[in-house]
Amino acid sequence: MNQQPSPAAHFRVDALQCSRWTRVRFEEWRRGGLDCVHVTLAIWEDARETLRVVGQWERFFREHADIIAPARSVADVRAAKEAGKTAVMLGVQNTSPFEDDLDLVSAFHAAGVRIAQLTYNVQNLVGGGCWEDPDPGISGYYGRNIIAEMNRVGMLIDLSHCGERTCLEAIELSEAPVAITHGNPAAFVGGAVELAARNRSNEVLQALAERGGVIGLSTYPRLAPDGNDCTLARFCEMVAWTVELVGIEHVGIGTDLYLGHDPSILGWWRKGRWSREVAIPLSGLPVFPDWMQSPADFDNFATGLAQQGLTENEIHQVLGDNWIRLLEQVIVTAPANVAHLTSAGQK
Amino acid sequence: MNQQPSPAAHFRVDALQCSRWTRVRFEEWRRGGLDCVHVTLAIWEDARETLRVVGQWERFFREHADIIAPARSVADVRAAKEAGKTAVMLGVQNTSPFEDDLDLVSAFHAAGVRIAQLTYNVQNLVGGGCWEDPDPGISGYYGRNIIAEMNRVGMLIDLSHCGERTCLEAIELSEAPVAITHGNPAAFVGGAVELAARNRSNEVLQALAERGGVIGLSTYPRLAPDGNDCTLARFCEMVAWTVELVGIEHVGIGTDLYLGHDPSILGWWRKGRWSREVAIPLSGLPVFPDWMQSPADFDNFATGLAQQGLTENEIHQVLGDNWIRLLEQVIVTAPANVAHLTSAGQK
Repeated sequence: MNQQPSPAAHFRVDALQCSRWTRVRFEEWRRGGLDCVHVTLAIWEDARETLRVVGQWERFFREHADIIAPARSVADVRAAKEAGKTAVMLGVQNTSPFEDDLDLVSAFHAAGVRIAQLTYNVQNLVGGGCWEDPDPGISGYYGRNIIAEMNRVGMLIDLSHCGERTCLEAIELSEAPVAITHGNPAAFVGGAVELAARNRSNEVLQALAERGGVIGLSTYPRLAPDGNDCTLARFCEMVAWTVELVGIEHVGIGTDLYLGHDPSILGWWRKGRWSREVAIPLSGLPVFPDWMQSPADFDNFATGLAQQGLTENEIHQVLGDNWIRLLEQVIVTAPANVAHLTSAGQK
Repeated sequence: MNQQPSPAAHFRVDALQCSRWTRVRFEEWRRGGLDCVHVTLAIWEDARETLRVVGQWERFFREHADIIAPARSVADVRAAKEAGKTAVMLGVQNTSPFEDDLDLVSAFHAAGVRIAQLTYNVQNLVGGGCWEDPDPGISGYYGRNIIAEMNRVGMLIDLSHCGERTCLEAIELSEAPVAITHGNPAAFVGGAVELAARNRSNEVLQALAERGGVIGLSTYPRLAPDGNDCTLARFCEMVAWTVELVGIEHVGIGTDLYLGHDPSILGWWRKGRWSREVAIPLSGLPVFPDWMQSPADFDNFATGLAQQGLTENEIHQVLGDNWIRLLEQVIVTAPANVAHLTSAGQK
């Protein structure tokens, strides 16, 4: 399971995209050479609402079977790559789909979800988001149970939008390594960007790396160094800085690209149903940098990282191999789930 | 609205019962002379599940219209009393029915719910329960919004199962007085009872009273002084002690009687869907004291309180008039809601 990939088996992985999905996006993945993309099914959606999005993806998998395929395991990613397709890993950016029900973790795992963020900006049943001050940390009952259950079924814990204390406690409580699929180091970016609260402290990044986790650095201009003016060189400087801080094995890419949406989506993401006013004023859809207008531009990372002096192998690690190693370690394919797939004739 | 009730208009109110509902229970209310009972619709139930229980109560109101009637306002309680019926105030012991949706507060208000407890034992989207250590307090976004919205629509905030910090912050944040519908003073009862974490500090009780709130003292043996051995005299001693602490206007009764259930209900209450094991071991259904076997025994409080030296008027205050004053102050009948009722021909 943990063997080093052979030179022929390097992967390109984007650890988070959150677009409005059409074939145009899937074609961009192919042009960018992406072997695997983690896509978001839910921000505030509950179980029923998220299940519908699973069904939408099942439809995408049927209708665009020539270029995309579901990724329930790393073996699925390998098979997709060999077939010239992009493997899609389903994830949720909140534990809202699990509602208050521990059994919904294995239910959504059976439905194909492999990554779940514990909280999204604010407090939920599990812990605190990065906007909560103070962040209460992981809740004493359900929060601990959810972490243990995600570990058991093989679902990757994502801490991208969690608060500082929730991050540190989750890293400590989880038996498996965890991820920040899309975020940046606060110490490098500084406090001037619009969503500075989303970036993570050195303490969190180091604790995450010590336990084997990976952070996906993000091109989202509201979190990126110099904001809208972030150059490829500056971004890659951040990659090199983070590699220096936590080690090459623990750094990946999670662009957080979200394309094709109506601007109203931002209202939903920033206030859900729990507020009538946005906590952080809306400033329209972001303008992603000219060197990362879509996933088709993914190769620019390779160019920029080479200019920073990263070796070819280090570039492979950052652009995907680290994510594949982490997924291979965390996402155990549960036998019951495989049996289900076989009997359903889906595989 | 706030005029003193005339001698003829004293009320008997039980601020919480949580039984399995059959006509037997409603007949006990009549025998106990109860003019109003606050009943629990939800512990962990979500919006859909709670709405079904609203429908069940609508059926009870039709099928037992000779002895019970819905209480959407204090005027309803008066009308029921004059007709020789017990008015039923619908409440929820958790904000779980509101899910993550601020609009569900007014929706459930429209459906007749007039009391909502912010949390039940553990952490939720709104705040911390009395089992959480540390209790995170009221959440910075949804928690504050829920309190403001409950204030706006005229729904009484109940803090019975909340944690210490959540209680203090809710008392501070709420523009309307709040309630502890069923609980006891921790300083009087001590730490030896099974559910000691459910009883409240002097600090909370005094803050609640200073803002005009009421605490309903409870006969539930797992919270009561001397537990299963709590005598009527000892209970009434606690009433007198609490009156001394917070003032006569702020003390009422909330028996927490729950009758007719299968013992498995305790598993649901103590772990919902969020755990596979109970946090506090189950010890079967409680044995309520021989002097409070059912609501039919409510008159025993009058006897016991007289023996403690309370005046006739003070006894009236504790046995119901304080609750009526609080409800009159908090539960504003929203005009939109009245129109809805009129057009629906329900009243």
